[in-house]
Amino acid sequence: MNRPLHDAVEVILAKRDGLELSDSQIDWVVDAYTRGEVADEQMSALAMAILLNGMERHEITRWTAAMIASGERMDFSSLSRPTADKHSTGGVGDKITLPLAPLVAACGVAVPQLSGRGLGHTGGTLDKLESIPGWRAALTNDEMMAQLESVGAVICAAGDGLAPADKKLYALRDVTGTVEAIPLIASSIMSKKIAEGTGALVLDVKVGSGAFMKDVTRARELAEVMVALGTDAGVRTTALLTDMSVPLGLTAGNAIEVAESVEVLAGGGPADVVELTVALAREMLAGAGRDDVDPADKLADGSAMDVWKAMVRAQDGDPDAALPVARESHVVIAPISGVLTRLDAMAVGLAAWRLGAGRARKEDPVQAGAGVVWHARPGDAVTAGSPLFTLLTDEPARFDRALASLDGGWEIGPDAPVASPLVIDRVG
Amino acid sequence: MNRPLHDAVEVILAKRDGLELSDSQIDWVVDAYTRGEVADEQMSALAMAILLNGMERHEITRWTAAMIASGERMDFSSLSRPTADKHSTGGVGDKITLPLAPLVAACGVAVPQLSGRGLGHTGGTLDKLESIPGWRAALTNDEMMAQLESVGAVICAAGDGLAPADKKLYALRDVTGTVEAIPLIASSIMSKKIAEGTGALVLDVKVGSGAFMKDVTRARELAEVMVALGTDAGVRTTALLTDMSVPLGLTAGNAIEVAESVEVLAGGGPADVVELTVALAREMLAGAGRDDVDPADKLADGSAMDVWKAMVRAQDGDPDAALPVARESHVVIAPISGVLTRLDAMAVGLAAWRLGAGRARKEDPVQAGAGVVWHARPGDAVTAGSPLFTLLTDEPARFDRALASLDGGWEIGPDAPVASPLVIDRVG
Repeated sequence: MNRPLHDAVEVILAKRDGLELSDSQIDWVVDAYTRGEVADEQMSALAMAILLNGMERHEITRWTAAMIASGERMDFSSLSRPTADKHSTGGVGDKITLPLAPLVAACGVAVPQLSGRGLGHTGGTLDKLESIPGWRAALTNDEMMAQLESVGAVICAAGDGLAPADKKLYALRDVTGTVEAIPLIASSIMSKKIAEGTGALVLDVKVGSGAFMKDVTRARELAEVMVALGTDAGVRTTALLTDMSVPLGLTAGNAIEVAESVEVLAGGGPADVVELTVALAREMLAGAGRDDVDPADKLADGSAMDVWKAMVRAQDGDPDAALPVARESHVVIAPISGVLTRLDAMAVGLAAWRLGAGRARKEDPVQAGAGVVWHARPGDAVTAGSPLFTLLTDEPARFDRALASLDGGWEIGPDAPVASPLVIDRVG
Repeated sequence: MNRPLHDAVEVILAKRDGLELSDSQIDWVVDAYTRGEVADEQMSALAMAILLNGMERHEITRWTAAMIASGERMDFSSLSRPTADKHSTGGVGDKITLPLAPLVAACGVAVPQLSGRGLGHTGGTLDKLESIPGWRAALTNDEMMAQLESVGAVICAAGDGLAPADKKLYALRDVTGTVEAIPLIASSIMSKKIAEGTGALVLDVKVGSGAFMKDVTRARELAEVMVALGTDAGVRTTALLTDMSVPLGLTAGNAIEVAESVEVLAGGGPADVVELTVALAREMLAGAGRDDVDPADKLADGSAMDVWKAMVRAQDGDPDAALPVARESHVVIAPISGVLTRLDAMAVGLAAWRLGAGRARKEDPVQAGAGVVWHARPGDAVTAGSPLFTLLTDEPARFDRALASLDGGWEIGPDAPVASPLVIDRVG
């Protein structure tokens, strides 16, 4: 019998039959999959068995370690400052990384943000930044290190060397219905963050209609697993569970989210974006041992904005250039007067995606100017005949499907809804 | 989004989340998989979800119908005789098809046996017959029909046209740990038997250490599902649950099993082989409306042997030629006197396989002369120093691993074991 295949089947059978995988089984299967010795159809069967039968904590820890071992590890210990990073599980209008990274850097902690591009209804940080004229996402490790020392913050594309096993497995899970497994989500996120070499980490675990995790129980479980993984690996890790039933801020798109982020850095911007940015900054500073600094001060005194501009310029972007504007717009008018009682994050996210702000496949381009602006948030009064949404795209044929996504995603009523907290819980 | 992939994920998610698949989902996924539009890694994830979450009866019926629809259907309605077939889920020393097909034909019912080759510890009917000098397994549909009319029985290789979806799926399940799912086993077997066009069918569902199904509950469940599938498709179907904790007869191999089958056709042979052959023949005759004939008579009067010789000759074999003999043999001696209390089917099957009687991969050759002969069955007295097993192979290097397989697979004690029935139950 072909020995490697025989072993792959053994590992699949063990998990299928509800057993714990041994350390050596995990090490072997992750390594053999990365090398192409375990076939995609075998790994997808294993992923489904993991999704349905679960994994114990020590299996997840070992799986994460095996994914880290599949590639290179970065090391920022030679920097003159401590490091801290943030990861969000993905939400609609979630531009928080943009103001957060320069804000934390302005507080004296270096932020090495390796980011990704968007897929589906949640946007990608790199897609947003690429709407800034000239800005480039790809940096060498040396460029990244130099920028961290000189500017204090860098947001760039993760190189191919970090956790290649995860890259391969993530693409497979995407087409085989095996994305929503907590052991696989947690190990995917944490393998990259641990390999990245950050000293402290805060996880923004989103909960609600526009998030991956629809209920608090599963979101808390994911947060606990990830915090344990980070802590075990020597990364000071905490997590905030934050609400994603309503989209963040007033914009979902690319250039329009950059503009909103710049408002926040200028001391203004939507209250929820400011609140979450400051809350996450406090966690990162505490993790890096700098909880003596109040990040709110650094927004008020303009120092976060200074770091932002330096950060954009260091990656060949022009922070003062005009941002791209969509060629076409369509305004949705409030049909009655009252209070906006509901605004569904998923409806808005799908609309922005269908307008061209996001992509369906990895290789698709995105439109810099596309997206959705909403002119009220739940609890705000609206007047019949005034604009409720502005839809933006370069291709007017996209309006119909975007409008269909928004349909049923909002309500106007007589009374203000009960306000729900943005930060639901803290883990770690 | 790529529409076909999107649909594959939809189907996977439905089964993953414990929902029933709709008729159109089943039709689509089986057809798209056959055409290569659904990828192997998607089908293996779906197979694992089916294995762990199960399928309702009507889903299995529809899945089976979709597999039948993936290829051609045969039609024996123009024959002058009714047809009946048998399928065994696979056991050690299971040569029953060899005496059974000519026996039933001698009773006036045509037997169109499309068989397979062996994989792993259970032998294959075609491998056994190919040890007869000159015999060929491949027939055209016209040759098969002519032989059924003239001889009344044919055992040949299933063509590629029958249920190609099953062929593809079976190979996938084999390497992805998804073989042991009752819905997939039942639909795999029954799609081929229904497409084959037999009028009646008896299923020999093996139970015990040497079988696929280790316990009676699961074997009965499989039998019930298959009987329902056959009945719904208009095939008069019954099933016998039969014991496979002990191997059948006194031989496991290829030529040695042919020789044992010829003994049965000559009116002798081991009692258990005779018992099971006659029991299955009665089921087939009843299904074909010929329960007025007693198959035991046709063994006694030599008419089954006549059909056997005609059947072998019709496929270019010489029924009177000497069968191949292994070049090397090794005898295991009884260490003490007493009664053989246990003989494990799996141990014997693995030993025969390791001696070269079976194959590890589809493309491997088998040795015609290799196998295991046991000189006692449980309950038989044995004498210290007399032969207990004879191991046969062309390659003496194989003896060590075969002996290791047998080790612990048998016991000699002072008292005879409690006899267990060969036919455990009947379903249908």
